[in-house]
Amino acid sequence: MQFSKKDIDAMPSRYRAHFVNSLSGYKSANLVGTTDTQGRHNLAIVSSVVHLGAHPPLIAMIMRPDVVERHTLANIRETGWFTLNQVNHRFWQAAHQTSAKYDRCESEFNAVGLEPEFIGECPAPFVKESLAKYAVKLVREQVIEENGTILLVGAIEHGVVCDEALCSDGHIDLNAIETVAVTGLDGYHLGSRLGRLSYAQPNTWPTKLDE
Amino acid sequence: MQFSKKDIDAMPSRYRAHFVNSLSGYKSANLVGTTDTQGRHNLAIVSSVVHLGAHPPLIAMIMRPDVVERHTLANIRETGWFTLNQVNHRFWQAAHQTSAKYDRCESEFNAVGLEPEFIGECPAPFVKESLAKYAVKLVREQVIEENGTILLVGAIEHGVVCDEALCSDGHIDLNAIETVAVTGLDGYHLGSRLGRLSYAQPNTWPTKLDE
Repeated sequence: MQFSKKDIDAMPSRYRAHFVNSLSGYKSANLVGTTDTQGRHNLAIVSSVVHLGAHPPLIAMIMRPDVVERHTLANIRETGWFTLNQVNHRFWQAAHQTSAKYDRCESEFNAVGLEPEFIGECPAPFVKESLAKYAVKLVREQVIEENGTILLVGAIEHGVVCDEALCSDGHIDLNAIETVAVTGLDGYHLGSRLGRLSYAQPNTWPTKLDE
Repeated sequence: MQFSKKDIDAMPSRYRAHFVNSLSGYKSANLVGTTDTQGRHNLAIVSSVVHLGAHPPLIAMIMRPDVVERHTLANIRETGWFTLNQVNHRFWQAAHQTSAKYDRCESEFNAVGLEPEFIGECPAPFVKESLAKYAVKLVREQVIEENGTILLVGAIEHGVVCDEALCSDGHIDLNAIETVAVTGLDGYHLGSRLGRLSYAQPNTWPTKLDE
């Protein structure tokens, strides 16, 4: 199916949302844990976390200023902290459920049956069930003027990665901890490993790294 | 394994790159097709494309100003266009190979055995073998001051999606076209479908949408 810009603009709103959200490819699935200064916890699933750099260790996260994410955003602005918790196979439906419009006073942890835990100086709750998670300090936020979304730049602080997933060269095996990926607005997937490839050099075909 | 900020800073450079790149979760795998005004093509794999919005249809892409991506960036700045082509199972090693430091005059298409094609007014080449691909017009670029990476905001223009992947509600089934996902710096995966979940509402557990 070929499509033009006009075709996209003419799509019914929901159809367009499904379609365009699918175009970028597979997305990460993380739960953002936050708290306000009164200790009210919030948990929301996001598929917009992207790696920015390793040194310093930074991530970016795109947020929409709508109801669900407004709680998350407000909390991040209040405390300057949030946690990112990779979603895995054991709680992917509960993670999706956090996207429901819960009341500000209702903790999604309770509503979806996940357990908060606290690590180090970060006031925001981690998800106990997650096997790869870390605290993030807000560095900067800015509005993406083209559509009013908000780009958050965050510094990775401390965290936890399940030992069985950690490879000898630092790579984290997301298959080993059954981390989940997202497609479109509502598709969830495990990964099926093809392999790791050697550092690419001109004139030499890549080889699979030993697992 | 618990880790602190100090632990990350103390990691050997390559180890830290593998580790931190793995933290955000699964990433998209796309080939960016570009051309300069002399018609020299360039192809590069990126795992940093992220959905920004559906209306208007926008994506963001994070680029590092290093050798490989400098060709891509220079071309995008010259022509204002690029293509994004989802990587699939049939050419994932060739896609990885595009990350090798080829000379400016050497087309990665030739070097890795992929075929350029042209669709509509976009001067940049598409990848014929890709089953979900689209042209993007550069809207804006900005430097992420925290580490010098470059954020590109792009408007989705025209493209092609394989019919068999298009669901009746607009969702694109990336499993059907064997689109690939990336983990860390060098891990490649197919998706293994768990399911699509219904729009989340408070007090109702999500149900699987019919496939």
